Amino acid sequence: MPKYKLIYFDLRGRAEPIRMLFALAGQEFEDVRIKQEQWPEMKPKMPHQQLPVLEIEGGVMLSQSFAIARYLANEFGLAGKTNLEKAQADMFCDALNDLTPKLTEMFLGNDEKKAEVRKELVEQLLPVTFTNMERLFSKNKDGTGCLVGDGLTWADVMFINFAEGMEKLDPSVLKNFPKLQGLEERVRNNPKIKEFIKNRPPSEM
Amino acid sequence: MPKYKLIYFDLRGRAEPIRMLFALAGQEFEDVRIKQEQWPEMKPKMPHQQLPVLEIEGGVMLSQSFAIARYLANEFGLAGKTNLEKAQADMFCDALNDLTPKLTEMFLGNDEKKAEVRKELVEQLLPVTFTNMERLFSKNKDGTGCLVGDGLTWADVMFINFAEGMEKLDPSVLKNFPKLQGLEERVRNNPKIKEFIKNRPPSEM
Repeated sequence: MPKYKLIYFDLRGRAEPIRMLFALAGQEFEDVRIKQEQWPEMKPKMPHQQLPVLEIEGGVMLSQSFAIARYLANEFGLAGKTNLEKAQADMFCDALNDLTPKLTEMFLGNDEKKAEVRKELVEQLLPVTFTNMERLFSKNKDGTGCLVGDGLTWADVMFINFAEGMEKLDPSVLKNFPKLQGLEERVRNNPKIKEFIKNRPPSEM
Repeated sequence: MPKYKLIYFDLRGRAEPIRMLFALAGQEFEDVRIKQEQWPEMKPKMPHQQLPVLEIEGGVMLSQSFAIARYLANEFGLAGKTNLEKAQADMFCDALNDLTPKLTEMFLGNDEKKAEVRKELVEQLLPVTFTNMERLFSKNKDGTGCLVGDGLTWADVMFINFAEGMEKLDPSVLKNFPKLQGLEERVRNNPKIKEFIKNRPPSEM
């Protein structure tokens, strides 16, 4: 059995940043992508009846995508170097996660609702989130490096996944945020991330 | 200047578990409770234009209540002993936090909406969350100790704050969950928590 087994649907969604952390750390894992019809039988066996779930050598199962990502980041040295850096990474991640309910509302809504929430995100919510991030990021080495401290953390990984999703709503969503644009480009050009992105299966979500 | 300054409104809300962590660690802090009319002027100066904010010696400001609580838990030895224990604590906390959008919907809604969301929480959502927690907790020393490992963590603190809030919606919300009831009682009877609860200012939220 591999040291890590990641269980999710055959989607990027909430598992993709986790897969990217494995790639960045050069850590092999079993990428279990279940079919929708397998879910009803599996659901009651999962810790919180949700996916993704990370199964760790020895059978321990972790749920909650942020808890899983932070765990792996801690294991792989990608969480930040000090408690304060870790908290700053958490803060960036949680600020992005604050928009998850809106994204869920959009994905589950009918066409009218989708259009309404998309407009609210693009015109109101994302500009606020990105303005705060750009300002905070600029304080860290003038926004020329990574979000936290002087090396990649899971916050950078969460950010590029989030930004990619938002650029599907509107390709120019980062146009007023040059520091964040630069960050996205640098992180996506990290050789391990680049290789991962090149080789991953296509996906709508 | 004190080592820590916690800025929030004059409410329990999202700051109370943080205040409780200070109490548990016996760490003094400045408990800044601003008035609603001070907020418009302060808002743009806050990292994510939200409260609570923790200001740390040296002027660093952290936002996001979970990032703040986890940071202090790490500093105070209340986050879990290993990366895995930390992840398990995170998992419990995030499972509770999953209900935050519903709670927000309830607090901001009109009377009809409030009643509707309250019913959904009490009859559908909370039973699922608590069933999962009770089952997971039972695996840790038969649910006779704390949620994670063999000592208090911030997950226990988050849990009792959450449970207290939910018991205001319906006092019998934990009636089918004897292990969680026992946990709530034990944690609330921790001498430092008990003292904190006895002395805190009254609050509606």
